[in-house]
Amino acid sequence: VVDGALHACGADPDLHLLLVGPTAVADELVGMLAPDDRERVRVQPVPHGVGMADAPARARRPDATVRAATAAVAEGRADAMVSAGPSGATVTAAVLALGRMPGVRRPALAATLPGAQRYLRRRSQSSPLVLLDVGASVDANPATLARSAVLGAAFAQIRHGVPEPRVGLLSIGTEAGKRDKAAEAALSIQKLPKGARYVGLVEGHDVSLGGPADVVVTDGFTGNVLLKGVEGAYARAGAQVPPSDAPRGAVLLGVPGVVVVCHGAAAGADLASGIALAADLHRAGIIARLTEVIT
Amino acid sequence: VVDGALHACGADPDLHLLLVGPTAVADELVGMLAPDDRERVRVQPVPHGVGMADAPARARRPDATVRAATAAVAEGRADAMVSAGPSGATVTAAVLALGRMPGVRRPALAATLPGAQRYLRRRSQSSPLVLLDVGASVDANPATLARSAVLGAAFAQIRHGVPEPRVGLLSIGTEAGKRDKAAEAALSIQKLPKGARYVGLVEGHDVSLGGPADVVVTDGFTGNVLLKGVEGAYARAGAQVPPSDAPRGAVLLGVPGVVVVCHGAAAGADLASGIALAADLHRAGIIARLTEVIT
Repeated sequence: VVDGALHACGADPDLHLLLVGPTAVADELVGMLAPDDRERVRVQPVPHGVGMADAPARARRPDATVRAATAAVAEGRADAMVSAGPSGATVTAAVLALGRMPGVRRPALAATLPGAQRYLRRRSQSSPLVLLDVGASVDANPATLARSAVLGAAFAQIRHGVPEPRVGLLSIGTEAGKRDKAAEAALSIQKLPKGARYVGLVEGHDVSLGGPADVVVTDGFTGNVLLKGVEGAYARAGAQVPPSDAPRGAVLLGVPGVVVVCHGAAAGADLASGIALAADLHRAGIIARLTEVIT
Repeated sequence: VVDGALHACGADPDLHLLLVGPTAVADELVGMLAPDDRERVRVQPVPHGVGMADAPARARRPDATVRAATAAVAEGRADAMVSAGPSGATVTAAVLALGRMPGVRRPALAATLPGAQRYLRRRSQSSPLVLLDVGASVDANPATLARSAVLGAAFAQIRHGVPEPRVGLLSIGTEAGKRDKAAEAALSIQKLPKGARYVGLVEGHDVSLGGPADVVVTDGFTGNVLLKGVEGAYARAGAQVPPSDAPRGAVLLGVPGVVVVCHGAAAGADLASGIALAADLHRAGIIARLTEVIT
């Protein structure tokens, strides 16, 4: 976290950080900053982090870092929050502090992956692919999946500039099973953002290779397993494959505040990327624009 | 299929093939064989394949290719079957024709992936990692997951020579949620094969990178999505990463007969690999050995 914050401050001269956590950690960071940068960093001492082995309910305690950080966003003392703690705790704290967007019962974590490869101007580029939910709601009923489709499509339009996002439902073959049918029925009556359209069932390789869909919807268990599996495969193959400037953080969609979740095992560069993502989203006015599109 | 059968015949002089399918396809293949090889190929004309868009229940019809092929195994006219059709149809037909192994209510499809990298004798090798279920049972209750753990561990021992397989349950974090707890409870009372042990929850990247477990257990939906996602990522990164001689087919565990399922989009080389795998498993007496270990 200290490395990430240092990186982020160095890369963005207009960034201000509010460090929420144990005093010792915060002091270490402040001590490493150049004197000119110190005024950009404030510290809010909060004693208890929520660890990976703790129950997510710990995030409800006012003396938990994640609870204090979301409260700072809710109270306007921060414009966005970034956490590398357990995503369950962050989601719990965010909903508690910020509430939900209209029509949203369960927020969804959205990750951006490199999608279909496109060959433009002599160099290969990837279109972005939005995968959600990657861990906010382990069990998603059809209504939740349909609502995630709306959030994901709106995010693809606003954040990635995809005017007509194609929305796919993650499945295991082209023939819809019982649970796919229920989700497809819910999706068929769901009003997607203008320009977006539902394109049917997609499979695991459609997420890693890209192609049929710009937004892929699934429950938080399947999405989390798939995301980590694909990331592991890329890591094994060498970090430069595929070339991608996709941020290393997932965005919590469906709460009226900017919340970015980084890997628990995030390195400094990953956390810095998550901080930059959060700042970008705030500057782009993502919350107001998302709320407008989905309402 | 024709390409794959040609490849397989060329690579294994002791292989005999029974082609079950439309006469036109079978005749095409026989016409392409060298005259000496033709006597190794018999044809059983069956008119109707089960396509990806068909209901798996079609596999129950006696005039379906997959039904006729599993019947050939059940009746001893074939030692193993290989299909590149929809896995749901193959599982349905296999259970119908062959029944189930003792104590198995739902068979599981097991895929072998490259596991942890090991550096032996100056070259990098991968230990095998068995992932199951990759598509036989979409919804798996805790008892099914526990039984899959037994089948997977026995398979790792017999097929891959891993004497003390470490069995992990696929999840999304180190903190067990409700459904993980139910599965862990079922696993804790399940007698694993001698030498095997349960090592706890693992995540998606543990499947692609290898490490904590030799056998990873999950439901058929999650496993299928993960396998295809990881395969897609490797394909995107270039087929040679990671170096692996893992066969390109999944083995149906829990039925008393050798059944191998290849991708619906399998190329000839993939199908040939699946055929070679089926022949290997038969020659190794896998069914008798598996039955002995799990009983």
